[in-house]
Amino acid sequence: MTIEQLAARLSAGALTTDPDIIAAHARDEALFCPHEGAIALVRAASASDVQEVMRYATANRVPVVPQGARSGISGGANGSPGAILLNVSRMNEVVAVDEAERLVTVQPGIINQDLKDHLAPYGLSYPPDPGSVALSSIGGNIATNAGGLCCVKYGVTRDYVRSLTVVLADGTLTTLGPRTAKGVAGLDLRHLFIGSEGTLGVIVEATLRLIPALPEPVTAVATFPDERTGLQTVADFMAAGGVPSLLEFLDATSLSMLNAFGDFGLDEDAGSMLIMQIDENPTDSEAAMAVFAEVAQACGALDVAYSDDPADSAALVAARRMIQPAYEKFAHAHGGGQLLDDVCLPRMAMPEFCDRLGELRSRSGLTIALVAHAGDGNTHPSVFFDAADAEETARAQEVFGEIMRIGLELGGTITGEHGVGYLKRDWLSSELDEGGQRMQLAVKAALDPLGILNPGKMFGAL
Amino acid sequence: MTIEQLAARLSAGALTTDPDIIAAHARDEALFCPHEGAIALVRAASASDVQEVMRYATANRVPVVPQGARSGISGGANGSPGAILLNVSRMNEVVAVDEAERLVTVQPGIINQDLKDHLAPYGLSYPPDPGSVALSSIGGNIATNAGGLCCVKYGVTRDYVRSLTVVLADGTLTTLGPRTAKGVAGLDLRHLFIGSEGTLGVIVEATLRLIPALPEPVTAVATFPDERTGLQTVADFMAAGGVPSLLEFLDATSLSMLNAFGDFGLDEDAGSMLIMQIDENPTDSEAAMAVFAEVAQACGALDVAYSDDPADSAALVAARRMIQPAYEKFAHAHGGGQLLDDVCLPRMAMPEFCDRLGELRSRSGLTIALVAHAGDGNTHPSVFFDAADAEETARAQEVFGEIMRIGLELGGTITGEHGVGYLKRDWLSSELDEGGQRMQLAVKAALDPLGILNPGKMFGAL
Repeated sequence: MTIEQLAARLSAGALTTDPDIIAAHARDEALFCPHEGAIALVRAASASDVQEVMRYATANRVPVVPQGARSGISGGANGSPGAILLNVSRMNEVVAVDEAERLVTVQPGIINQDLKDHLAPYGLSYPPDPGSVALSSIGGNIATNAGGLCCVKYGVTRDYVRSLTVVLADGTLTTLGPRTAKGVAGLDLRHLFIGSEGTLGVIVEATLRLIPALPEPVTAVATFPDERTGLQTVADFMAAGGVPSLLEFLDATSLSMLNAFGDFGLDEDAGSMLIMQIDENPTDSEAAMAVFAEVAQACGALDVAYSDDPADSAALVAARRMIQPAYEKFAHAHGGGQLLDDVCLPRMAMPEFCDRLGELRSRSGLTIALVAHAGDGNTHPSVFFDAADAEETARAQEVFGEIMRIGLELGGTITGEHGVGYLKRDWLSSELDEGGQRMQLAVKAALDPLGILNPGKMFGAL
Repeated sequence: MTIEQLAARLSAGALTTDPDIIAAHARDEALFCPHEGAIALVRAASASDVQEVMRYATANRVPVVPQGARSGISGGANGSPGAILLNVSRMNEVVAVDEAERLVTVQPGIINQDLKDHLAPYGLSYPPDPGSVALSSIGGNIATNAGGLCCVKYGVTRDYVRSLTVVLADGTLTTLGPRTAKGVAGLDLRHLFIGSEGTLGVIVEATLRLIPALPEPVTAVATFPDERTGLQTVADFMAAGGVPSLLEFLDATSLSMLNAFGDFGLDEDAGSMLIMQIDENPTDSEAAMAVFAEVAQACGALDVAYSDDPADSAALVAARRMIQPAYEKFAHAHGGGQLLDDVCLPRMAMPEFCDRLGELRSRSGLTIALVAHAGDGNTHPSVFFDAADAEETARAQEVFGEIMRIGLELGGTITGEHGVGYLKRDWLSSELDEGGQRMQLAVKAALDPLGILNPGKMFGAL
């Protein structure tokens, strides 16, 4: 079969070999990741399109790069030499809402926020809320086991996946289930697929578990003289049994970049800030807020305030959600470069991690800002640099790697929620022991024996 | 290396070839499952013992059956021809409690209840509570992804596993992690291992996520004129947004067997009973209880009562936990045979499932009792028969299979929490589609290329 013959078997207009269109679809949001060389783009309209592409790819040993919204930041959706870009963004329907079983079945291309909006009238909630909630698709969220702000109480994408329908390397369609609340019939391949970044197959449908609509939260804001006291508050509050529904940390650099971006009026004199939410009933929330205030003050907080006004809460969380655009504005004015890291740590290790970032700052002379989904120990340091300056760029990349090394040293992981993709493939072997590395490759080879699914990503350097 | 040489490399006295001792360790609690032919028993005292056994097994192509407390009921821990029984029950220490991170690290042989008791003074809880909580070990719980009574609110074993240290088929020791709240570095092989029933490796250490100690629940009991109305209440209450911490169903047959076993004073005139717990704060619990009572009455309940006296709650749940001994007493008086099934269904399908059980009862003439972790749709029908009567035994086995077939027809699974083992291996292919079956075998072959880990179990009939 030629690629023209493949095109004829797909939904009308699904396949294009136009170099400009291919180029416009060849990368996600990652820096420093190769993305060139794709030979075609298929915008699949159905599972059958996906199957046809995979059958063709197997027959012709053509690499395939599964893509959703391309909002990832590790290069997992980037093109590679000779590859077909297999984009499922057009498959974005809600197939069915089952109120009685609290389930929703969706196509992979639906945007996370669109799903949330669709569910609101039913009084049901799909909690996972990655920073990219307005941009990223459910298929991509599953492929990277996306996290977000609410994970500290509500868990990650994995915790909401019931069954997946996937297309395997050879075009076989299979459903990894069951849809029931419990099920242990055979190896749980559904959980193997979650977070597999398009290296094992292509998700074409997902049934997700829902929970009753989340209650309105009470929101606290605390400011601290420095970073360390803010992060110590997180560790101590969680150790005291706190169950926040959101617990975000911003360092002084991030606060000042946010203020420079929008009219948020955040306290510029503070060395760091915590935004914390509790969504229990009023009595429990108030009690938890009192514990939080006590812990924060014991750690040396400058100020602790809280509000049960939904508008206040929404405004604060909206400010936090603007951090990436604020970073981009700063980067734009300073040479354009930003490398966003994603080290997840034991909570108790965060204060020391912050000290080590300080040393890195002094040593490298680079601006490093830190935000964190702190209740989960999931830190996002950003390294800023002048992308036109080769030496500074190299220094920034070195710092980026050093941050991961420190994370591993402190008992953490190189990636809490962003995935490995191209960006971190050289570091994967620093995290996994030798047996673990061999198992990764063995499972990959078992399910994709020709190595056509997203080659070079994730395992590319093992 | 001979088996005597292997013995010399293990902890003193760990290996025995005494046929009586082997026979005493050759099976779990399952009926109708082969268990003969093991050549040695190793009671491992350390991960190093486990590694030595696996190295020997790989070098000599000897099958190995990993075992914990042998409380399983699917034959997963049963001996097989030529196999070494590799029992880890002696490895039962709590390695470390980390209060600040809410984690505990344990050896695999620790009994679930012993872990709970160990954690109580810390104000921490490990929720998973299979019916076998007092007997079953954490390693076995992980190997089968055990469920239990609290799953309806707190999830299953999988939801509490952070990292696993496992020994692979060739003796390699590897840690599948990370220990952090989030982590997506590579394929999640830890989740592949959970529920793999000893077919991929041997768990030698586990780090588990804990939550703050569970609050005292309020308990409701509702009785109904028949089974259907009780199960409809479950479906309707959950559809109305109920979040119980326990929701158990008992049919009339089970109630009468319980009363015949102990002095429980359960209402014998009822056609079915629900036990429901809520462990929110008093206000929310009371509101939820009112919703439950309303739903139950709308479905035709005979009586609904509730109590916040912990003693009442404990007594009711204790009665529910006596169901298996009560079944055994009945079975003992009626020829000894009981086959316990484990079909998990969409909640809305439970009333129809119950009707179908009624038809099976009429058609087969056998006693079939039903209890269910009803909030999760996880039903446990028991088929009773005279084990000395070959024809009746065959009929019971047929009914046992028919129950699974009905479960699949209604959108369920052949096993919600007990696992496949030997007992259900012939039915696995009825649940998994062709692609899924191939993937199971491919992953198994990738991680256990010689097929020495728990051969014949789970995949044995694919």
